[in-house]
Amino acid sequence: MSDKKGVTVKKSEDFSDWYSQIVNKAELADIRYNVKGFIVFRPWVVQIMNKMFQLLEKELETHGHLPVLFPALIPESNFVKEAEHVQGFLPEVFWITEVGGSGKKVEERLALRPTSETAMYQLYSLWIRSWRDLPFKRYQKGQVWRYEGKATRPFIRGREFYWIETHNAFSSLKEAKKQVQEDMEITEKVIHKGYAIPFLFFQRPEHDKFAGAIHTYAADTLMPDGKVLQLPSTHLLGQNFSKPFNIKYTNRKGESEYVWQTCYGPAVSRIIAAVISIHGDDKGLILPPTIAPIQVIIVPIFSKGKEKSVLTNCEELKKDLEEEGIVIKIDDDRQHTPGWKFNYWELKGVPIRIEIGPRDIIENQVIVVRRDTGEKTAIKNNEARTRIKEALENIQQDQIRRADKFFNDNIKTVHTFQELEKYISDEGGIFKINWCGLEECAEKIKDQTNGGVIRGTLFGKKENPKGNCIKCGKTATQLVYISKQH
Amino acid sequence: MSDKKGVTVKKSEDFSDWYSQIVNKAELADIRYNVKGFIVFRPWVVQIMNKMFQLLEKELETHGHLPVLFPALIPESNFVKEAEHVQGFLPEVFWITEVGGSGKKVEERLALRPTSETAMYQLYSLWIRSWRDLPFKRYQKGQVWRYEGKATRPFIRGREFYWIETHNAFSSLKEAKKQVQEDMEITEKVIHKGYAIPFLFFQRPEHDKFAGAIHTYAADTLMPDGKVLQLPSTHLLGQNFSKPFNIKYTNRKGESEYVWQTCYGPAVSRIIAAVISIHGDDKGLILPPTIAPIQVIIVPIFSKGKEKSVLTNCEELKKDLEEEGIVIKIDDDRQHTPGWKFNYWELKGVPIRIEIGPRDIIENQVIVVRRDTGEKTAIKNNEARTRIKEALENIQQDQIRRADKFFNDNIKTVHTFQELEKYISDEGGIFKINWCGLEECAEKIKDQTNGGVIRGTLFGKKENPKGNCIKCGKTATQLVYISKQH
Repeated sequence: MSDKKGVTVKKSEDFSDWYSQIVNKAELADIRYNVKGFIVFRPWVVQIMNKMFQLLEKELETHGHLPVLFPALIPESNFVKEAEHVQGFLPEVFWITEVGGSGKKVEERLALRPTSETAMYQLYSLWIRSWRDLPFKRYQKGQVWRYEGKATRPFIRGREFYWIETHNAFSSLKEAKKQVQEDMEITEKVIHKGYAIPFLFFQRPEHDKFAGAIHTYAADTLMPDGKVLQLPSTHLLGQNFSKPFNIKYTNRKGESEYVWQTCYGPAVSRIIAAVISIHGDDKGLILPPTIAPIQVIIVPIFSKGKEKSVLTNCEELKKDLEEEGIVIKIDDDRQHTPGWKFNYWELKGVPIRIEIGPRDIIENQVIVVRRDTGEKTAIKNNEARTRIKEALENIQQDQIRRADKFFNDNIKTVHTFQELEKYISDEGGIFKINWCGLEECAEKIKDQTNGGVIRGTLFGKKENPKGNCIKCGKTATQLVYISKQH
Repeated sequence: MSDKKGVTVKKSEDFSDWYSQIVNKAELADIRYNVKGFIVFRPWVVQIMNKMFQLLEKELETHGHLPVLFPALIPESNFVKEAEHVQGFLPEVFWITEVGGSGKKVEERLALRPTSETAMYQLYSLWIRSWRDLPFKRYQKGQVWRYEGKATRPFIRGREFYWIETHNAFSSLKEAKKQVQEDMEITEKVIHKGYAIPFLFFQRPEHDKFAGAIHTYAADTLMPDGKVLQLPSTHLLGQNFSKPFNIKYTNRKGESEYVWQTCYGPAVSRIIAAVISIHGDDKGLILPPTIAPIQVIIVPIFSKGKEKSVLTNCEELKKDLEEEGIVIKIDDDRQHTPGWKFNYWELKGVPIRIEIGPRDIIENQVIVVRRDTGEKTAIKNNEARTRIKEALENIQQDQIRRADKFFNDNIKTVHTFQELEKYISDEGGIFKINWCGLEECAEKIKDQTNGGVIRGTLFGKKENPKGNCIKCGKTATQLVYISKQH
């Protein structure tokens, strides 16, 4: 790979340019598709997302969610059934109005789903009959489309994204709330431990909740530029949808009641922006081993007359490591030099590179290079299997630790509005502040900090405000977190 | 399960009713979604399709296809670039014309993709530069939407379906033709050996090819009612798309040339109709072990005081079989009787049922029941692991054999039009006939046989016509296969 093809800007100096270059040069997305806000997902990113989806689906199924697939088209009459929901999503809908070649109008406008509540819940009213059917937990993997007004950015914000949405029904508010807790635990297991992305789980302020929800809870991570990115959100829907969609069940006493609902929506094609940004460095991606489509790349160092024995050694090691469940590939292409290959696989973020050359064969060893630290070690053949497996585990843990450190180091308590203004502009980050709870005040803070948005109160751990609202000076009712956002 | 919930009609007596009942009672699809031609895919069928997709994707990746994801929306200006293509698909397009809440028109109408050639190939023209980039093989897994005029039937025909489409570019016609051969081999490995669905691979008549293709090749299977169902098709596109989309590469001599293309489209959500229909019996589905979401179901036979030891035995066996890579579940639900569970899992088509009760524990055995034959065997605990693994392999092979037998028994040569008319109406099936090659004659045959459609000539094996066209009596130019179709 020529220098021209490498990333030419430092992540620490210009995150935005660095991000664009990575997306382009590691061949993750192509932004030249000719519909605004739509991108093409290229092979490497599809393979990473497949791994991410697998982890998520496995965890959801372990927790009793079953997969379904609903149509992508929602009749307008369904869509408008929940008043707040339609108000929130209407501006973002793509509408199908015609079919065929001669402009024939459809009987009723069809919304390309921006989210699936109003597609799914009419069937829930047919499927759920008795307390025996509850809890009723389903998930759907697929795309949604939103006519997004803001500027779009590959993965970060677009008009088409890939996600999972779970839709769940319960016999009580208490059980629904337990599901919110479970969603947070799933997020922790998959997104933190699996994707190595740290987050805080917030209850969003009243004025910033999902259209149609009683409460919205959401996980935010922090990007290298000091702005947060929203990861999954969970919505406690209460009976707001079960009433208009008539989802009732017969309880143990034989009485008819409306169900209580939640939904949870991890947007994998957005979360990957955090994986790219938080782990990557000036050489390219750094993929956590759990979601790397290739965990180990072997680069044979060919020299004349030794090609065959080098390749045989590579293949033997590959076989050994595959028995350990490691996903491994030999890059035996003859058109490029080893140096070119090193750069290429570093750009792609493969966690471990192994080099095997004629000298290593004589020394009975392989050279192992960690993508995250660059650390290079010679490992004897008889130890390779164990030590490479260990190295992958270490890399995973180290990536979590490093990501956590950056995240935690950038959460600060500020006591005055002046401090907030200064820090949020200088370095960004997440700030803990006292707030009165009024939307009006939140709006002022947002305007005057040039985009600082209150993310909400911490979920799952009670934190009490002390003193007065940082902006208006009235008695604070909440201790909240604030940050600029992507 | 009460009798009411079981299938109440024999497959051999009324296939159509049997099919509807299976779809409903095994909870595969819900047809009550309120957009015509759209269905909801329920958990069991999604899980089966996931297995089917996995086999297919693995095989495609083995053959060098890489995954991509293109937008679901195609600008009208792309869509109309290839003249025959647009003519063929235009009548089936759902159009997006408006966005948001106030009827704002989009700048250009957007087609909800009915197939992705015109979405993908503009990017191919940017990605493919040199002979080094060829062959260029990509696949996309996703949905397509077609405003289908004919009556819809769950899985068999609908307005939204789930498939994989591969799109490939080569440096010569010869290589493109080799890809057609490879597609047939992939179909053989995945659909025949994996899904246990037999087929013949035909070259379709000129008048029945894909809009924009030079030739269309397609696999047909035979449904129990004697009508064929089309499985994947492969299209040899030649340079019909590379010219309007300007997909050129520089050859080894430094000259610029248009690429040669193929595409292949296995519609998994349609192929599952064949899996349901060909393997199922009057008790429900019979799933080939390779695509069964649960391969073995253990039903504990509880009796008072013995619950714990029964369950322990079930769990030990489960652990053993999981080590063999078998997907297994214990149905330890206490609300239903063993008899209810037997019926339930038979309806769902799980290949093997194991019963373990207190007596079996004393006898040191388990009871193994094959779903396909109903055969019941007592197997000693120390042999369970090996023999159950063998049984799964045997079931797979037996399902292939039985399906092949039905398929082959129903392919007949007929020599006169009277014979064809009689047989095709009486029992259905696939018939080999001599044909002049003219569309006009094919149309007459179709009309007069009430729907007999010429499927084409056998691909990969030269079969010469002998004598005259079965209809017009002119010299036959092709030996073709004909059948009524779904």
